[in-house]
Amino acid sequence: MTTATQYKELTNTTAIAYAKDNSLLNGNITCEEIGDGNLNYVFRLVNDIGDSIIIKQALPYAKVVGESWPLTLQRATIEAETLKKHGEFVPAYVPRVLHTDAVLAITVMEDLSHLTIARDGLIAGHHYAHLAQHIGEYLAATLFFTSDFALHPFEKKRLQVAFSNPELCKITEDLIFTDPYYDAPTNDFEENLRSTVEALWQDNDLQREVAKLKRHFLTQAEALVHGDLHTGSIFVDAQTTKVIDPEFAFYGPIGFDVGQIIANFTFQWLTRQGEDRQKTAADIATVWHVFETTYRQLFTEHYEEHYAKVAGYLDDHIADIFVDTLGYAGAELIRRTIGLAHVKDLDSIENNALRLQKKQQTLQAGSFIIKNRRNISSIEGYLAHLEDIR
Amino acid sequence: MTTATQYKELTNTTAIAYAKDNSLLNGNITCEEIGDGNLNYVFRLVNDIGDSIIIKQALPYAKVVGESWPLTLQRATIEAETLKKHGEFVPAYVPRVLHTDAVLAITVMEDLSHLTIARDGLIAGHHYAHLAQHIGEYLAATLFFTSDFALHPFEKKRLQVAFSNPELCKITEDLIFTDPYYDAPTNDFEENLRSTVEALWQDNDLQREVAKLKRHFLTQAEALVHGDLHTGSIFVDAQTTKVIDPEFAFYGPIGFDVGQIIANFTFQWLTRQGEDRQKTAADIATVWHVFETTYRQLFTEHYEEHYAKVAGYLDDHIADIFVDTLGYAGAELIRRTIGLAHVKDLDSIENNALRLQKKQQTLQAGSFIIKNRRNISSIEGYLAHLEDIR
Repeated sequence: MTTATQYKELTNTTAIAYAKDNSLLNGNITCEEIGDGNLNYVFRLVNDIGDSIIIKQALPYAKVVGESWPLTLQRATIEAETLKKHGEFVPAYVPRVLHTDAVLAITVMEDLSHLTIARDGLIAGHHYAHLAQHIGEYLAATLFFTSDFALHPFEKKRLQVAFSNPELCKITEDLIFTDPYYDAPTNDFEENLRSTVEALWQDNDLQREVAKLKRHFLTQAEALVHGDLHTGSIFVDAQTTKVIDPEFAFYGPIGFDVGQIIANFTFQWLTRQGEDRQKTAADIATVWHVFETTYRQLFTEHYEEHYAKVAGYLDDHIADIFVDTLGYAGAELIRRTIGLAHVKDLDSIENNALRLQKKQQTLQAGSFIIKNRRNISSIEGYLAHLEDIR
Repeated sequence: MTTATQYKELTNTTAIAYAKDNSLLNGNITCEEIGDGNLNYVFRLVNDIGDSIIIKQALPYAKVVGESWPLTLQRATIEAETLKKHGEFVPAYVPRVLHTDAVLAITVMEDLSHLTIARDGLIAGHHYAHLAQHIGEYLAATLFFTSDFALHPFEKKRLQVAFSNPELCKITEDLIFTDPYYDAPTNDFEENLRSTVEALWQDNDLQREVAKLKRHFLTQAEALVHGDLHTGSIFVDAQTTKVIDPEFAFYGPIGFDVGQIIANFTFQWLTRQGEDRQKTAADIATVWHVFETTYRQLFTEHYEEHYAKVAGYLDDHIADIFVDTLGYAGAELIRRTIGLAHVKDLDSIENNALRLQKKQQTLQAGSFIIKNRRNISSIEGYLAHLEDIR
């Protein structure tokens, strides 16, 4: 094994050499870069007997929509350590980390390229029978076991320091909680949406509640959240679910992860019809119910203080998470429609009138649930509201 | 200047040598240890022209009521850095730090021994005309300027890591939020209080709300709080207020500091009569009103995001702080009556029946305001409730 003392971008050739030097793969190796090159290199290495690995390397910059800005390489360490930490609790739902290298910002992982990115599969009309169940379990276990209910306070605070992630959090703070709510240069929306967007900017009730969500995101250190849990961060097939890319992980609000993934299923709900839509509705309900049921079970089994037995305490806690979940779901619906980073679920709709209608609906739904999140008491209530949108 | 490479307890002689070696004081120096020796040495050094300094050295253990347990020396660094950070915003209300030494766990400060500990002065019946005003300003400035409203998110998160304080926080988590609420060996209460205490242990509504306060304390990283802001942590005279001993500082809930000091004024309210009581009531109201007014002013002047102008946002934030303040005040009232660390305000009452009555009242008040904190809308409402206690 060789140890790099300085960061250097890998090439196909040096990626192969790196794998050999570190005994990660033997034999005759071929290598292909399969990432989009905006934030990371993703090298897939295969040898002559078909064994394969992924070498992911963070790049010292981020490119989004032609813009490029410097971005900490520390995110590779955050990502690898989060995969390992979450992997302690849900090994089935995260990729195995085989090797890490902080200097080169490298994480070597099991190869999951036989799986499909959930967003792509869902947009193509597929339904994954176990996805919602798996995500509910993933959420409950990763969030519960990294919370104060499960950890000694020294260990929780140690992890909170280790996963301090200012640069990546700032991206979320800006792109989800700030820029979409005023005329910021990072915003990106269709001109036909302008009057709706300007109405959001003038909506004092919405602004007031989003300001609270932002403050909550900045201050609420509940659990080691994934921080970017959309359907583009999930690999799937009929049996398997693997959550990838936790570069945005930090100690934050539990409802952030739950809300973000529910919003991303909601894009599918909004763009699907008939039976397909009902399957998505069932998935949204399943994500929440499995999360809640599993989290309650873990709390009952593992939280050892006498407060664990206090009638109503867990109910109140779950109710708080649900309110947060709705708020963060609403924020995700809005920012994916008018902010810097869009979703293909909406943007790939070719019919202009239909696409515009769907975007109007996401904005309407997002704004409504942010403002009314304390008055919606169940995931069925959330789905009923979606049905009311015209 | 000499640099120690290993911790060693100072003596009067080595304290003088240390002051000379580090050019902290010149001339013929005499030294006296004036601390209580339970957690720290406090050396007062005076030279022949009357200049004086304080050398405070953390001890590697804590002694409380005969018990002794190891305690991190890092708290000296936390204390010194908090004094310096808070001193940026309220130099008039904290001692000047002249020198620090992490290895020896030493903080050298201006000598404030001409001042009186506020608790002692208040118990002796004094009233300090500026104390409440000063504390209100201290709270507003230290808490606002270390919050996300005032700091760049990178700087806030840097400070949050630097002030991670697991061992001292654990003491608070145990002694304020856990042990008083079940039959824990650390509790210490008069046998005549037992039936009242056991009623608290059986009070599900109280347990449910204290569990939430504990979780809030563990997760809510709002500002660099003092963490132990009782009247024993304040030096006073007729003109001067100096807040000392922030060893428990960490990024925590704003309402914790505000509530703790209000509770400690409340012990005085409960034990005073007539005009003296009215002065204390006015002080309690002043602490809150000056805090609120100053905090609002700082928010308006220094918070630069567009959310600063959103109608109602600051009102909601202040209302949240007030609810937290009442909850933490209630927890302080209870733990100082039945937990490990008592207050002289109550324990020094010699008449058994009167002392017992006052302790019953603190428990009644504490339990009531914790359970009803969301329904008390002003500090006057809090004081009115105190008037109702029998």
